[in-house]
Amino acid sequence: MTGKLYGVGTGPGDPELLTLKAVRAIGEADVLAWFAKAGGTGNGRAIVEGLLKPGMVELPLHYPVTVEIDKEHEDYKSRITAFYNASAVAVAEHLAAGHTVAILSEGDPMFYGSYMHLHVRLAGRFSTEVIPGITAMSGCWSLSGLPIVQGDDVLSVLPGTMGEEQLSRRLGDTEAAVIMKVGRNLPKIRRALSNAGRLGEAVYVERGTTPAGKSMRLSEKLDDTAPYFSLVLVPGWSGRP
Amino acid sequence: MTGKLYGVGTGPGDPELLTLKAVRAIGEADVLAWFAKAGGTGNGRAIVEGLLKPGMVELPLHYPVTVEIDKEHEDYKSRITAFYNASAVAVAEHLAAGHTVAILSEGDPMFYGSYMHLHVRLAGRFSTEVIPGITAMSGCWSLSGLPIVQGDDVLSVLPGTMGEEQLSRRLGDTEAAVIMKVGRNLPKIRRALSNAGRLGEAVYVERGTTPAGKSMRLSEKLDDTAPYFSLVLVPGWSGRP
Ligand SMILES: C[S@@+](CC[C@H](N)C(=O)[O-])C[C@H]1O[C@@H](n2cnc3c(N)ncnc32)[C@H](O)[C@@H]1O
Ligand SMILES: C[S@@+](CC[C@H](N)C(=O)[O-])C[C@H]1O[C@@H](n2cnc3c(N)ncnc32)[C@H](O)[C@@H]1O
Repeated sequence: MTGKLYGVGTGPGDPELLTLKAVRAIGEADVLAWFAKAGGTGNGRAIVEGLLKPGMVELPLHYPVTVEIDKEHEDYKSRITAFYNASAVAVAEHLAAGHTVAILSEGDPMFYGSYMHLHVRLAGRFSTEVIPGITAMSGCWSLSGLPIVQGDDVLSVLPGTMGEEQLSRRLGDTEAAVIMKVGRNLPKIRRALSNAGRLGEAVYVERGTTPAGKSMRLSEKLDDTAPYFSLVLVPGWSGRP
Repeated sequence: MTGKLYGVGTGPGDPELLTLKAVRAIGEADVLAWFAKAGGTGNGRAIVEGLLKPGMVELPLHYPVTVEIDKEHEDYKSRITAFYNASAVAVAEHLAAGHTVAILSEGDPMFYGSYMHLHVRLAGRFSTEVIPGITAMSGCWSLSGLPIVQGDDVLSVLPGTMGEEQLSRRLGDTEAAVIMKVGRNLPKIRRALSNAGRLGEAVYVERGTTPAGKSMRLSEKLDDTAPYFSLVLVPGWSGRP
């Protein structure tokens, strides 16, 4: 009998935004696996802190590289692939031994989450269930009280890593937008929003739903510093009745 | 002392996908308000059925018109506006009397949800908290085990109500897509996916995360009938390591 694999969405930060199903899965798990920067414990792990049981085995999965390294570099691809392969092997050993493993994923696992790299390597071989999580964008537009889309609005989710021209074009071709992965891309994101005539509507949120969270109009943010855990919301809502 | 307003996301159908915060808010509420078709009880209400307390006041908000009526028709706009105005008045009366009111919203309240029409009418006057919910799309890609976006992928959320040309163009200009509001739009959606060369990758999900749920490749769905509660997923994931 092999064990069961859970891909567990932890939501964006507030532990009360865990689903009942996520809480149950963590309660059932023998092994808790989580991604983190080298030496760190990771956001997902911090969110579920209060649910850890005595005797629970933890399996930290430490990224070998950070987002700082150019992703087009050949070395990045080979190192990150080797890391996902080794992580999948480590999880598979537990599953083969009959242990239930919960892999944490900040927000929703299948939405820009690292979990999916293990999912594609393991789901074919082991009984697997993916438990959706509140996405960072849902958490952020809710705390900002910002209706994001209605009726026939299009929503474009855009990584802030894309080029300025692309970003400007796409912002000019959508009712609503969410720009993920802000961080050091903030000055470029401002320019793209301005090019598209949408800067005035944009809302900036960092560490949304956590005690350190901040939300403000982007036009009122005076500096160019943004943490990795930040995003920009551009509300749609055409034809509001 | 006026009461507190909660906009509560119920998730896509499975009651276990409620968040801990949603469960708490419903537990605190004196009045439970929910949207439904005339005579119906609505999906949100069904999802929280197990949480209803004896003595809880229910405030059904029955739509005066259905999606079947042409939305461009002048009569639709005036009737639906009058409905949202009257619903806001009914909720405001409870809040003014000091009652805590939870308004249910299937999925996430601010994401194509009716709740937002009450939010903009009430949040300025009463203490309000929006509790995000698992979106239908997150529920559907999770149960399908489908990684939707990774890395620098763009995700386009497209209402199936838009014209075929628009839909084809947008499907050809994105890594990943979610098509909402499928229903009677299914034949047009198929043509648009085919025009964009994406039909083969598309996954169809109806009533995702409920016991009646179904998920299949769209190319394996042989009929053209789809309920209102269905959507189509087109996974991205460029440059998978
Ligand atoms: C690798 S993606 C993970 C997304 C996550 N799986 C989800 O469902 O939202 C990381 C990006 O999510 C956004 N993010 C995650 N948590 C956030 C938070 N609490 N507040 C604001 N943005 C957040 C930031 O844009 C960040 O760069
Ligand atoms: C008015 S929108 C509401 C969206 C909701 N607020 C959310 O967060 O996903 C209704 C559309 O959501 C989708 N939907 C809602 N529940 C669903 C389910 N259980 N399975 C598949 N699609 C669903 C369908 O496309 C439907 O036409």
